Amino acid sequence: MSSRDSIPRPTVRRLSLYLREAESLLQAGHRTVSSSGLATSLAVTDAQVRRDLGHLGQKGRAGIGYRLAPLITRLRRALAVDRSRNVLIVGAGRIGRALMAYPRFDQRGFRIVAVVDADTSLVGRAIDGHVVQSVDQIETIVVDGDIEIGIVAVPEADARAVAQRLAACGISGLLNFAPCRLNVDVPVIDVDLSSSLEELAWAMAEPG
Amino acid sequence: MSSRDSIPRPTVRRLSLYLREAESLLQAGHRTVSSSGLATSLAVTDAQVRRDLGHLGQKGRAGIGYRLAPLITRLRRALAVDRSRNVLIVGAGRIGRALMAYPRFDQRGFRIVAVVDADTSLVGRAIDGHVVQSVDQIETIVVDGDIEIGIVAVPEADARAVAQRLAACGISGLLNFAPCRLNVDVPVIDVDLSSSLEELAWAMAEPG
Repeated sequence: MSSRDSIPRPTVRRLSLYLREAESLLQAGHRTVSSSGLATSLAVTDAQVRRDLGHLGQKGRAGIGYRLAPLITRLRRALAVDRSRNVLIVGAGRIGRALMAYPRFDQRGFRIVAVVDADTSLVGRAIDGHVVQSVDQIETIVVDGDIEIGIVAVPEADARAVAQRLAACGISGLLNFAPCRLNVDVPVIDVDLSSSLEELAWAMAEPG
Repeated sequence: MSSRDSIPRPTVRRLSLYLREAESLLQAGHRTVSSSGLATSLAVTDAQVRRDLGHLGQKGRAGIGYRLAPLITRLRRALAVDRSRNVLIVGAGRIGRALMAYPRFDQRGFRIVAVVDADTSLVGRAIDGHVVQSVDQIETIVVDGDIEIGIVAVPEADARAVAQRLAACGISGLLNFAPCRLNVDVPVIDVDLSSSLEELAWAMAEPG
């Protein structure tokens, strides 16, 4: 890719979908995929697929399409997921536990290496093979565990303080499930599952 | 709004964010918000905010900005979340349980009215005030409970069969947490939490 910051954010989301689709096709024994094949399974247009993959310097060949193996390599590189990263989950409540059990993180190179919680009754308990540690240990865990990503899965009241501590000890990015802006100087992606329901409500109301 | 299908999907995602921000400002006692205020808190440009809200026929006034109350009304109408909807969760595992405890659904008018699971040892158990019912009851529950939205939170192997049953008994839309395409004739929004981590990895790798 010529210049990574030239890729708009919605394109990044689609690249992530192309990657998933390409990986599952390769796993199913396919060697190539056409732009229309990708377009149909992801409900976008052919032209969109060709434009998006053009950003990565990938051109499909007429009658053959894109070769899957190099396409996957380029997609992983473009998304910066061509290596694994250590992840700390802060908060072993419902959301934290759902994330611990989420198989796709590991498949995508996001390795959950530590889980902390403020609840002392949880500290020391093993959940999904992770022994919950005290939230007091955040700084040590991040530094010693070479943690790049923190997942904030704590109640809203605690989220900003947790984020500031994570940022202060050198975390590189945060995935935030708390319903508030974190206001820290590292990249944050806010996850609001009700936005997905709103998007669905909108799609349901669409004519046709 | 003049024509709802003229709003592109990425705009819909931003409208959802504007709505969240506008609601929290109103709750905090504000009456108005400027386009630059919205732009800063959501990390988009001023011009983008004005263009997006222009789609809804909302124009800010110089020196005053947008009045929050009518803005919220228009955003809810545009997103088709100006009324409540009944939701069925299929699957009372980790993800299903995290969703049951998710306060924002209710705040946004998505009412979880039933939960089903295939595991007979879970059937009859109360989780978060919901008594888990048998997956065999899906058809009755959807029809009698006036369910519009189904949340598919079952393992991949079961997801398509569940989706087909939901579609066959008249559900209007599905939110899918299983790592596969559902291939049904109703609108589906696929949620892949690892996409959010990929988006974060990409943002972390951006220069500057």
